[in-house]
Amino acid sequence: MSGKVQVQVQLVRCMSGQAASKINLPASLCRRLRDITPDAYGTLRKMMIQMERSSCLGSSLELTAQELAANRVLKRIKCKELETGFQNPSQFTPGHHIYDVLQKVKRSPLFRMLQDMPKGGLLHAHDTALCSTDFLIDLTYRENLWICTANQGCQAIAFRFSQSEPVLKPAADDCRWQPMSEYREQHGELKVRNYLRKRFTMYPFTNFVSTNEAWRKFMSIFTLLDGLLLHAPVWADYYYNALREMHADGVQYLELRSLIPNLYSLDGSKLSMENTVEIYKTETERFLKHHPDFIGAKLIYAPLRGVQTKVVEKYVEDCVALNKKYPNFLIGFDLVGHEEMGRPLVDFVKPLLKMPEHINFYFHSGETNWFGTSIDENLIDAILLGTKRIGHGYAVVKHPVAMELAKKLDIPIEVCPVSNQVLQLGHDYRNHPAAMLIANNVPIVIASDDPSFWHASPLTHDFYFAFLGIAPYTADLRLLKHLAMSSLKYSALTAEEQTKALEKWQKKWDEWIACVTEKAEGYAD
Amino acid sequence: MSGKVQVQVQLVRCMSGQAASKINLPASLCRRLRDITPDAYGTLRKMMIQMERSSCLGSSLELTAQELAANRVLKRIKCKELETGFQNPSQFTPGHHIYDVLQKVKRSPLFRMLQDMPKGGLLHAHDTALCSTDFLIDLTYRENLWICTANQGCQAIAFRFSQSEPVLKPAADDCRWQPMSEYREQHGELKVRNYLRKRFTMYPFTNFVSTNEAWRKFMSIFTLLDGLLLHAPVWADYYYNALREMHADGVQYLELRSLIPNLYSLDGSKLSMENTVEIYKTETERFLKHHPDFIGAKLIYAPLRGVQTKVVEKYVEDCVALNKKYPNFLIGFDLVGHEEMGRPLVDFVKPLLKMPEHINFYFHSGETNWFGTSIDENLIDAILLGTKRIGHGYAVVKHPVAMELAKKLDIPIEVCPVSNQVLQLGHDYRNHPAAMLIANNVPIVIASDDPSFWHASPLTHDFYFAFLGIAPYTADLRLLKHLAMSSLKYSALTAEEQTKALEKWQKKWDEWIACVTEKAEGYAD
Repeated sequence: MSGKVQVQVQLVRCMSGQAASKINLPASLCRRLRDITPDAYGTLRKMMIQMERSSCLGSSLELTAQELAANRVLKRIKCKELETGFQNPSQFTPGHHIYDVLQKVKRSPLFRMLQDMPKGGLLHAHDTALCSTDFLIDLTYRENLWICTANQGCQAIAFRFSQSEPVLKPAADDCRWQPMSEYREQHGELKVRNYLRKRFTMYPFTNFVSTNEAWRKFMSIFTLLDGLLLHAPVWADYYYNALREMHADGVQYLELRSLIPNLYSLDGSKLSMENTVEIYKTETERFLKHHPDFIGAKLIYAPLRGVQTKVVEKYVEDCVALNKKYPNFLIGFDLVGHEEMGRPLVDFVKPLLKMPEHINFYFHSGETNWFGTSIDENLIDAILLGTKRIGHGYAVVKHPVAMELAKKLDIPIEVCPVSNQVLQLGHDYRNHPAAMLIANNVPIVIASDDPSFWHASPLTHDFYFAFLGIAPYTADLRLLKHLAMSSLKYSALTAEEQTKALEKWQKKWDEWIACVTEKAEGYAD
Repeated sequence: MSGKVQVQVQLVRCMSGQAASKINLPASLCRRLRDITPDAYGTLRKMMIQMERSSCLGSSLELTAQELAANRVLKRIKCKELETGFQNPSQFTPGHHIYDVLQKVKRSPLFRMLQDMPKGGLLHAHDTALCSTDFLIDLTYRENLWICTANQGCQAIAFRFSQSEPVLKPAADDCRWQPMSEYREQHGELKVRNYLRKRFTMYPFTNFVSTNEAWRKFMSIFTLLDGLLLHAPVWADYYYNALREMHADGVQYLELRSLIPNLYSLDGSKLSMENTVEIYKTETERFLKHHPDFIGAKLIYAPLRGVQTKVVEKYVEDCVALNKKYPNFLIGFDLVGHEEMGRPLVDFVKPLLKMPEHINFYFHSGETNWFGTSIDENLIDAILLGTKRIGHGYAVVKHPVAMELAKKLDIPIEVCPVSNQVLQLGHDYRNHPAAMLIANNVPIVIASDDPSFWHASPLTHDFYFAFLGIAPYTADLRLLKHLAMSSLKYSALTAEEQTKALEKWQKKWDEWIACVTEKAEGYAD
């Protein structure tokens, strides 16, 4: 072997991750590379690009002949949108804030195709941020609903179902209760609807200057919705409708993070946490009966993180008790709330270690762009505490040891692209850190977090931005199929349940593939 | 060893990059982690965090007692700014566009400290984007300067030094030449100064919607400046002043990318490229004579990339000829211009392979956030062509093989934080990909690209945003020293020159360290 060929061979060996750590390449090597013919250069280049592409998430997946045909349709549609973006980046939707392109995205042929796609399970979503705004507004027409407003009726502070004026005093001093019907008459129906459309979401576009401000607005929506949704019968209907909207959006399974709040009755009495779980279970079963192609749902108990250690002790006890009563339904634990302002996991290690092994952790961690703080160090604790998945993990790419462990231990990152944008972690989807996870073959699932608050579909918008904006140009049906299957693989479904789940998913997948190939032209714009 | 201890040991072994590829950890491992005491957990956690920190760029650098004292001052000042940011992220300058915080940054104690710091060499900067705007405006008072304006004098199109009205016809149709002095009288001096302050930079803040729009504005500044700067005597003064401004900003060495344009004389005749290089050389030597603590400068011939293959053949010939005449001064080659719109390196492989081995490549590549396109594949070609450094490499983190090779082959990424922000690759410095390079110990140098166009200091703003916004909370004097030394290590200085350069730098560094410790309070705000 001549000297120059040896250099190339060494280079190629060095490129493979396996070999990289074993070879000590002399730094002078790269200087001798010009001693090569253009043809040989072309071969070397192809090898290197192939090596990069084959290390991408999902790239090793083999497609059937039918899938290959569908892939051609998909690629044509995706490339068209990408090429338009290359020509004029100001027209590329993933370069913009979702608020500015929501309608444009909905008209996109790629979006419509992804909406039909069976996407498997939604593994990261929160209890009261699931349903469409229209459904929320419909709820405000229910009987016995009261609204508490401040600033001469200009600002909605709270809702409450009650037969007479609620005795509850909301935070605002000058807040006054009145029946919702009276409020609606007073201000005019259309005006109230438009007002609520804004109050129930992060819209209209506000140029938040920081994550903290975005989070204040975000948490205020949860607070406002509490009185509307925590009424037991409404809670059941809200959840059932969420399943219906997900199902229509190509979601067949849900793993829901819930605060498991105490619901209230019309007379103001509080119900038990058990009662809340019972509603979830009953409604899931009812939905399954009417939608046999649905796979099911499970619960992750996810109370607020900004608390004292002894409160976390109580959380663990509650979780154990609920899991005992609903062993295959309430299956995991997490802590929620603004990670940057709440307390880090390390503060709660003692009570958390008491959680029995069979109850999984699914910790939010690294939902931040601060680097090297107690916030992103939550990633380390999540992994050391044996988390089964990592919620958000936006900062994991800045932590090579944590990222390597996530890969080796097969801990997927729950990537929530739209949520990260709205909550001010990043703007342009092309800079989302999940691109590095895809490139490095680190397991991920795509999730939507709180789609209700940004008028997004239950899961499709996140798939759209992930596929078009975050993943590489070359990403195709392999990645989409990999992501859908991963959402079942990394779920809390038992082995037996998973087999059945995959069957249900495969059936819908095959139908979709056939449909894509058949009505290829139907997706054109 | 008990079962549970074994799990921890395996985990720790797995964390080390070396071991990672050799261990096949069972995925079930992470489920058993809760069987540990809180104390043992604490130890394991400390180890893991230590392992992460020690893999960071510069972390292994040992500091002297004096440096440790200075480091305490530095850390106090840095932490104060960071803590203010944690409390109220809207006040954190690296979360904003430089246009909005320029004055605030200049008042920052950390900025002032970094300004005094001997930062070594500036390895990525372009010929006509170096000097302060004030200096440029002063140049417009020189004798024999003509200005060509359109829209009834409202829009400056071109400048030209000439004894009588220039015969040159600029692009704009309705453009009309008049002596600069007449133009100034006509519009009023202050108005003209204010107008030029805008026209010579990317200011005032414009919310460009895409990289393309930002680049159009950017290139228009270069075009406007050509007639003003390409006049031989002005060219010399401009360059000399650039060295003076850099020197005042703590820069001791420059590796300049230049188009090496043909300059013009007052009579309109064109001078040779050799003449341009000669001016650079003469002025560098003149500057060195007056500033013996300066190290020097070298040139990289960097013509435009948006051309036909045969033009690149000519580039290579010119480069070889110029290098022959100035063997230790014109030492490298690059191609410049908007990478996303220009042609990819792969198109030019044939002529580029003809470049003799002793002339280094310093290719711009991956200055994009498109992923998996011919643009970021320039990274592959830059490396395969044996580039000595990578210009920008913004996309390298999405290319694990390229990133691994950059590390193994010791090819540093020239990180230009402010340029990337202004040219619309990313907004928040905390999301800049260089964070991943720092975390993964990939070699980098910090550079400023075109500081003139954004009113930035020659190098300090980039150091400030890199250190405060991109690097981790824990980054300290070790990183700064590492970056300064890297700028000499990765320069084109010969071994002998490098030894002398390091001596000159070390002298200033020691003075600075002593100064920081002494006037610790002087940096407080």
